[in-house]
Amino acid sequence: MKKSLGAGTLAQPTPAWLVGTYDADGKPNVMTIAWGGICFSAPPCVAVCVRPGRHTFPAITARRGFTVNIPSQNLARETDYVGMVSGAAVDKFAVAGLTATKSTLVDAPIVNECPLVLECRLVRTMDLGAHTQFVGEILDVKADESVLAPDGHVDPLKLRPLVYAPGDGKYYGLGEVVGKAFGIGKELMGK
Amino acid sequence: MKKSLGAGTLAQPTPAWLVGTYDADGKPNVMTIAWGGICFSAPPCVAVCVRPGRHTFPAITARRGFTVNIPSQNLARETDYVGMVSGAAVDKFAVAGLTATKSTLVDAPIVNECPLVLECRLVRTMDLGAHTQFVGEILDVKADESVLAPDGHVDPLKLRPLVYAPGDGKYYGLGEVVGKAFGIGKELMGK
Repeated sequence: MKKSLGAGTLAQPTPAWLVGTYDADGKPNVMTIAWGGICFSAPPCVAVCVRPGRHTFPAITARRGFTVNIPSQNLARETDYVGMVSGAAVDKFAVAGLTATKSTLVDAPIVNECPLVLECRLVRTMDLGAHTQFVGEILDVKADESVLAPDGHVDPLKLRPLVYAPGDGKYYGLGEVVGKAFGIGKELMGK
Repeated sequence: MKKSLGAGTLAQPTPAWLVGTYDADGKPNVMTIAWGGICFSAPPCVAVCVRPGRHTFPAITARRGFTVNIPSQNLARETDYVGMVSGAAVDKFAVAGLTATKSTLVDAPIVNECPLVLECRLVRTMDLGAHTQFVGEILDVKADESVLAPDGHVDPLKLRPLVYAPGDGKYYGLGEVVGKAFGIGKELMGK
């Protein structure tokens, strides 16, 4: 018998990603999101959800683009910080010791310190209650060589992304390999 | 200098969740999704992305509801299996050894073996390319007592959710606590 916890956003895991934008003054800004995820394969798209009051909000609507920068565990403190303060009040890049490079594909900054970055062109917007969902088409993914496996794919154990747990309010690291997708379930086929 | 990997769905982490539905014959069905995530706080909503060809697709549009069932690591094989076969051809619950209880809130089955379940009423649909995004308002979250901390919150280290890594194609477990959200970044404030 399961216990009712009420209506809430208690799904796990969620990401901890940094959304990069340029504000109206051309200043690079970055905010943390946990509400979002990959939403389409073809074209490849990612959704990020932002409240209208955030400094990032008018930046995305004006520039029609953003980056999704995936921090490693060693950037947990910086990731947490840029989710708590407003780019309207402070230069988050400067305080957090982050540096920006302008994307050549979209009008948004890449966070150099994040080893994996998605460059996204705004293609859809959905309003619902307290948040707006921005869907970005992923025009390119760029990675530091340091997080690539010998065959060129992104190695999660090198990337070491943060995992956020709503309800618990903590960041976690990635654990051990459990199994291969489209693989470990095959033994149930034909049963 | 970052290396271009091309356009693709290479964000990490993504979830491995089981979407529960009843098909046109009233048979409970379940499929795995990695494309999705929490998308709004108020009202609490979760997005799941499904290709129109999937057996789950007409079930969600007809019943206007679904469940998001979060499997623990020990269900990795079952999670993988139900993502590879079609409920049009097989009874996935029976083959995977899963059992269903009808939700009292939405017209969809709860997967009893999953310790955390979100009961969702379909509120929005967004088509884009190969997938359709279904946004469900979370009417209730139900949990097994076994995954709750003494204070009643969901303990991720008891839940042990699967983490899927696109590009790598493997499921991972959750690792150690990295830090407290809205906490570890505070030392950068006022700098």
